Amino acid sequence: MGKRIVIALGGNALGSTLPEQMIAVKKTAKAIADLIEDGNDVVIAHGNGPQVGMLQKAMAELTRAEPDKYIPCPLSVCVAMSQGYIGYDLQNALREELLDRGIHKGVSTVLTQVEVDPKDPAFDHPTKPIGAFMTKEEADRLVAERGYDVVEDAGRGYRRVVASPMPQSIVEIESIRDMVDAGLVVVACGGGGIPVFRTEGHHLKGAAAVIDKDFASCVLAESLDADALIILTAVEKVAVHYGKPDQQWLDDLTPEAAEQYAAAGEFAPGSMLPKVQAAVRFARSAPGRTALITLLEKARDGIAGRTGTRIHS
Amino acid sequence: MGKRIVIALGGNALGSTLPEQMIAVKKTAKAIADLIEDGNDVVIAHGNGPQVGMLQKAMAELTRAEPDKYIPCPLSVCVAMSQGYIGYDLQNALREELLDRGIHKGVSTVLTQVEVDPKDPAFDHPTKPIGAFMTKEEADRLVAERGYDVVEDAGRGYRRVVASPMPQSIVEIESIRDMVDAGLVVVACGGGGIPVFRTEGHHLKGAAAVIDKDFASCVLAESLDADALIILTAVEKVAVHYGKPDQQWLDDLTPEAAEQYAAAGEFAPGSMLPKVQAAVRFARSAPGRTALITLLEKARDGIAGRTGTRIHS
Repeated sequence: MGKRIVIALGGNALGSTLPEQMIAVKKTAKAIADLIEDGNDVVIAHGNGPQVGMLQKAMAELTRAEPDKYIPCPLSVCVAMSQGYIGYDLQNALREELLDRGIHKGVSTVLTQVEVDPKDPAFDHPTKPIGAFMTKEEADRLVAERGYDVVEDAGRGYRRVVASPMPQSIVEIESIRDMVDAGLVVVACGGGGIPVFRTEGHHLKGAAAVIDKDFASCVLAESLDADALIILTAVEKVAVHYGKPDQQWLDDLTPEAAEQYAAAGEFAPGSMLPKVQAAVRFARSAPGRTALITLLEKARDGIAGRTGTRIHS
Repeated sequence: MGKRIVIALGGNALGSTLPEQMIAVKKTAKAIADLIEDGNDVVIAHGNGPQVGMLQKAMAELTRAEPDKYIPCPLSVCVAMSQGYIGYDLQNALREELLDRGIHKGVSTVLTQVEVDPKDPAFDHPTKPIGAFMTKEEADRLVAERGYDVVEDAGRGYRRVVASPMPQSIVEIESIRDMVDAGLVVVACGGGGIPVFRTEGHHLKGAAAVIDKDFASCVLAESLDADALIILTAVEKVAVHYGKPDQQWLDDLTPEAAEQYAAAGEFAPGSMLPKVQAAVRFARSAPGRTALITLLEKARDGIAGRTGTRIHS
């Protein structure tokens, strides 16, 4: 009996440039097709760090070249573009892999917005660097003219930083649910989703923020009543005492045990910590839900219980 | 009893820049919401000329600034980006307008690829100018290095030209159909769709082409078994002897009558002619199908039979 699975793809599943992406998605497609071949319903979310950075730089270069014609492009709009840019290659690679295996399932990318809370404390302390390095003069001008937050990055120059607020809900969840129910494979919540917040009435306004794709995937998995959330990363299992002589790989964890390790500082902030936190949140959201953290190429074995780190009650 | 309607939005429904787009889509949303309020199922297609031009220029500026890091971005990839860029604003404006009227319907944008025939004669005679004006030196380099086709444009410089092949089929049609059947409002076939052609096996390759959005909308309407195709443009009705003393507005036409006027050279190529051709093709595709050409703000009146030019058997 198949499961409903949400997969959160990490950066290595997509590469950093267009040529890298076109190669990387082929391998990614094989791993996802394995899960579909086993009879599971699959929804795919993914990050967009290098891609949204590229689009931000491209739009900034355009504004620099034709300042009278083009205004700087808001970050939320660049995220929307990046969903088209990545979804196009990802859905095609998966479509092709499925057809090569004789599996006739539609694969589609849905433009996805994710609502954040304008009162999220993350907006008071923007920490996520985006876009190109700048000189002090360029940075000072953006602070003065556009109210950007900037930080100096270890001697390499200045970068804009934005908030990384928690995802609250997925605006297009009905569409995604209808498509999954109809048996389609869906790519959604690209880059953690286009961050928006509610203003007066029914208006949604783009936020100058980036949403962590693992937390967005968790909200997606909860909203779709998924059985499993797979967070793919660069290691096969989560470890404690990572990189030390007494390093220990973890197979099976309760949410409580995972939280204790997290509280003890076992997981790197901005790296393994948010993945474990998202996994804990999903595992706790309803009985019978399992979160799995593993390598892309171990997803099938992980779902079968043979590897990876599983977090469940 | 509501109809199933495909709407093809023209350039004036979207504007040419981001600030223009954010204003234009509000007005566009009102016209579309009128049709939905009347009980119709609506699917929205749109052009992307200025938008894909902007993205092409931005990506070209990025490649110019960092030639070691970024390769020139294929046109098909820029179309994919433009679907995210436009769909984000368009779906949000419509979502807001519907909620303001108390109508709870999901609105979603689906990344859409449209298959073209690599043997389409359009590929032998690229005619559609895209992107920025170039000097002769820049143009010569692109011809030599990348095999581009370029034309001189009336003393304003050189521009790349690409083919505008006929759309054959919509790759994501199943997803779109499932979403429409589920009662969702769908934005699809943005910019005429990402042009792709089939290579060996199941592989789809992006084509350096742009697909006419009216013809793509016609294929979309046929594939969804729509009752009506509305092609929105800058005039309320189609005219013969346009701009002359004996100009005559047309209300109701058979496909045959429309073809006779077209053969007599009544409609401008690249402007009204393809709209009439797409309308004729749709009207002829099955009994009971009506194509309507009118102004955005007259769509509701047009569907009610009060204005616009209707083409049907």
